[in-house]
Amino acid sequence: MNRLEKQLSLVMELDKLKSILRRTRVKSAENRLENSAEHSWHVALMAILVEEHANESVDIARVVKMLLLHDIVEIDAGDTFVYDTQATQSQKENELLAAERLFTMLPEDQQEELFAIWREFEAAQSADAKFAKALDRLIPMLLNYHNGGKSWLENGVSSEQALTVNRKIEEGSQVLWEHAKKMIDDATQRGWLIAQQGK
Amino acid sequence: MNRLEKQLSLVMELDKLKSILRRTRVKSAENRLENSAEHSWHVALMAILVEEHANESVDIARVVKMLLLHDIVEIDAGDTFVYDTQATQSQKENELLAAERLFTMLPEDQQEELFAIWREFEAAQSADAKFAKALDRLIPMLLNYHNGGKSWLENGVSSEQALTVNRKIEEGSQVLWEHAKKMIDDATQRGWLIAQQGK
Repeated sequence: MNRLEKQLSLVMELDKLKSILRRTRVKSAENRLENSAEHSWHVALMAILVEEHANESVDIARVVKMLLLHDIVEIDAGDTFVYDTQATQSQKENELLAAERLFTMLPEDQQEELFAIWREFEAAQSADAKFAKALDRLIPMLLNYHNGGKSWLENGVSSEQALTVNRKIEEGSQVLWEHAKKMIDDATQRGWLIAQQGK
Repeated sequence: MNRLEKQLSLVMELDKLKSILRRTRVKSAENRLENSAEHSWHVALMAILVEEHANESVDIARVVKMLLLHDIVEIDAGDTFVYDTQATQSQKENELLAAERLFTMLPEDQQEELFAIWREFEAAQSADAKFAKALDRLIPMLLNYHNGGKSWLENGVSSEQALTVNRKIEEGSQVLWEHAKKMIDDATQRGWLIAQQGK
């Protein structure tokens, strides 16, 4: 295969991400489960809109690239609910295998560049990755919050879990974490998140 | 509203793009109609993968931004099938009104920047916009072609229409246009596109 054929065969393979369902629900229309392709669009565009709230200055083109790529491994590995901490280890291994399979469909120079970007997102150490991760955590909270907490209620999530799991937002954006905490407080008062004893 | 509140209210409004259906079908899984949010993700990521085939050197970050934004006006204006030439004039007006409504939800500096990017895509004059437009035309052809021509058959599209409507791909990428013509030829031979008389 020539370079273009390799690139287009990955483009067609990526179509499968439209069939990977998340736990979050689309707010508009039929209130169905969201898929990972439309989520990836939403969070990449969100990055462009809220860039100014990153803790450190970011390279927005790299942040957007990370977010467009971050979930493609779910084509093989499936989506894991962020509150499902048990699944995390085997999921990591499956995602790495998926990344290898998908990126090696590309010409070699592209494989290396995009695989490196994907690993950088997973490692969550650089300023760009921390900000991208923060947005990936925040956007399902936003959708759930504006959906009457539906996905939290369906999955019995507590306010403590929400605070623990989403705390990493703070590393990418203090401003967005303050906003997230307000949503968690309010959702707990409304009974959408299970309140902790003694609170 | 402060800046963040304005930005997040647009983020929530954009959720509606996940309910705008196109004529193209998703190849994977249930073969349902594609929505404009997942299409926008797919074409933006495609831009990153095939950048090297642009006729002129492009600023890929701007191309990606255009493609993430290009369809948001469909939230108000709906999707128009690319072969529906009659709908085109009123659609243009409705899309402009939609762009005004959506972008004015943002802080003023952002309104101006993003509205300008959206208009640049629509005008299709700059190198970045020509390449973005080429991809937006090519990707539904790719999906249809790998789907046994389903959307062409459902809508009675001819090879002449396919050649005329998609010819603008050439302005963004000669390489991609050559590939598109091969697909159109092959789809016509297979009976997925209606052959012209005398051909």
